[in-house]
Amino acid sequence: MGYLKYNYKDLKNLCNTSFKEFGFNSEESETITEVLLLSDLFGIESHGVQRLVRYYNGIKNGIMKVDAEIETVHETLVSAVLDAHGAMGQIVGKKAMEMAIEKAKVTGMGMVTVRNSNHYGIAGYYARMAEQEGLLGMSMTNTEAITVPTFGREAMMGSNPIAISMPAEPYPFLLDMSTSVVTRGKVEIYNKRKEPLPIGWTLDGDGKDTDNAKDVLYNIINKIGGGIVPLGGSGEGFSGHKGYGLAAAVDMFTGIFSGGITSNHINGGKASGTCHFFFAVDYGIFGDKDTIKNNMSKYLTELRESKKAVGATRIYTHGEKEIEAYKDRIENGILVNENTLKEIEDMCNYLDIKVSDYLTEIK
Amino acid sequence: MGYLKYNYKDLKNLCNTSFKEFGFNSEESETITEVLLLSDLFGIESHGVQRLVRYYNGIKNGIMKVDAEIETVHETLVSAVLDAHGAMGQIVGKKAMEMAIEKAKVTGMGMVTVRNSNHYGIAGYYARMAEQEGLLGMSMTNTEAITVPTFGREAMMGSNPIAISMPAEPYPFLLDMSTSVVTRGKVEIYNKRKEPLPIGWTLDGDGKDTDNAKDVLYNIINKIGGGIVPLGGSGEGFSGHKGYGLAAAVDMFTGIFSGGITSNHINGGKASGTCHFFFAVDYGIFGDKDTIKNNMSKYLTELRESKKAVGATRIYTHGEKEIEAYKDRIENGILVNENTLKEIEDMCNYLDIKVSDYLTEIK
Repeated sequence: MGYLKYNYKDLKNLCNTSFKEFGFNSEESETITEVLLLSDLFGIESHGVQRLVRYYNGIKNGIMKVDAEIETVHETLVSAVLDAHGAMGQIVGKKAMEMAIEKAKVTGMGMVTVRNSNHYGIAGYYARMAEQEGLLGMSMTNTEAITVPTFGREAMMGSNPIAISMPAEPYPFLLDMSTSVVTRGKVEIYNKRKEPLPIGWTLDGDGKDTDNAKDVLYNIINKIGGGIVPLGGSGEGFSGHKGYGLAAAVDMFTGIFSGGITSNHINGGKASGTCHFFFAVDYGIFGDKDTIKNNMSKYLTELRESKKAVGATRIYTHGEKEIEAYKDRIENGILVNENTLKEIEDMCNYLDIKVSDYLTEIK
Repeated sequence: MGYLKYNYKDLKNLCNTSFKEFGFNSEESETITEVLLLSDLFGIESHGVQRLVRYYNGIKNGIMKVDAEIETVHETLVSAVLDAHGAMGQIVGKKAMEMAIEKAKVTGMGMVTVRNSNHYGIAGYYARMAEQEGLLGMSMTNTEAITVPTFGREAMMGSNPIAISMPAEPYPFLLDMSTSVVTRGKVEIYNKRKEPLPIGWTLDGDGKDTDNAKDVLYNIINKIGGGIVPLGGSGEGFSGHKGYGLAAAVDMFTGIFSGGITSNHINGGKASGTCHFFFAVDYGIFGDKDTIKNNMSKYLTELRESKKAVGATRIYTHGEKEIEAYKDRIENGILVNENTLKEIEDMCNYLDIKVSDYLTEIK
């Protein structure tokens, strides 16, 4: 697979124009673009611009609704529940985290859940929103089922990511992790490369270990059985039951606490129903904020500076790689897969957008 | 290792008497006993009555302070920070979760952190306290460092457990998991049995995989290097960086948010300084509580009833095993390791407590 490199601002303009063509207003288009491209800037290709065409298809199929009106169905001083009524996940996600942040600034904590939404991009985007306001931020989402419970052979939970972000210098803490051992995106990469998967990532239709990426993806899509194992692996020997428990907790915080549906009832091909969770905490409720932030910075520095394994040169803290990738890509451009570009060009033909008016390859 | 079986009530009386002999008042003694024995009732031997003698030694060495006065150093409507001043973890832990529960009942959420504490038993006890009040409960604690960051060779994080509990029928949801791949207790069992460890649990002093339980324990205790790997394994291939991130997050919620110390600064042999985190949420802030609880029960039932792997007969949800163990042990008695009993007898000799006045073996 070849890659082409483009300027961040050019990609942004193209995405913005596309979303406006889909029917979103300027503000909405900018929000969706911002979430999408932060993923590319962070080096997480799977959730970046390569999703653009998927969103286009989702809108054409009526799964994602351009004119959805987001409804607040329940609210207290510290909480809210939003019904997205099929809106784009990024639009309702940003709104929900803004509400959580506002509440946290007043009461110390704000927790907002969302039901009937769609794919919302990287969970880290929303946790980071709070972090950039000087708060602790958390976000979770359920997704279509890909993960098999310990001792099972049926995918019941999504990749169900958890993101946590906290201010620190010189890097914030930004953990953004699926609760499955790997994401579906990684299995797709092995499939494209026609390479066998590492044993311990996926299960076949009988619930047995398999290295066959093609079969696993086929089985997941057609809900035949098998899927990806939870963080910790298959069985209990390496504590796969912990990843399974975290994934179930994510479905509780998102699907159950929003009055929506859990991963095992999401059918992305028909109507999504994805549910999200957003949490902001003003850590000033525990004392002087500067002291707390300084202590966090000191702790993360201690981790980075702790002794390296023989043969290893560096210990990262979470968020460090993303911030470094961000700086690099803003300066040097974003890599776009050739196939992704082809898909975007096809889509733009339909929309009467001339891609060459927007993108010039960086050589 | 042989096991002897005793009645729960008899063990409770013996523990109560012992803690009173240590210098605690009746209420304090009952609290410590309750936390300790819930662990045995749940089938988690490592955190149960076998800790009794360790606590005795901790008190004799002045690490755990019988007359510590717990101080509230910061408080808001939704939060508090307690300084335990070296108190027993169970005493300050119960008090802190009671405060979190009270706050949650008023505002919807209560978050309490604790510094300068000691080992507090199973995290699940505190999460369950909230669950039994009809709330969502969470608890975390840092512990002396045993876990090595990804690409490191120095233990920097504790077992750093996360417990989450939520009401449901017929079993509550009760996830109680260390963020290391396994706990130190499991490594100790392999050491006692003189069996090689599964590769992928522990690292030697160079940060390389090892199966030598004896060396690993020696290295941890003497802070020579190596230790247990995070949930997800060594390196990034099976996402060990996720367990590492969760462990770091636990140190943030406990050590940083309490103004205390992080795992890498805890020296259990000298002065503990352990820090805890307690969180209660009245999930009524998201709508009708009965509906939410029913949806949670339905979801957990769907997980349990999902298709089993070929060769597997049962899928558990978290808390199910513990509740079943609890019922069994209340009815049939608690198994106590012969060595543990010997230690208790030695301790009781010093304290002038006649063990045979309390315990009669169940045959």
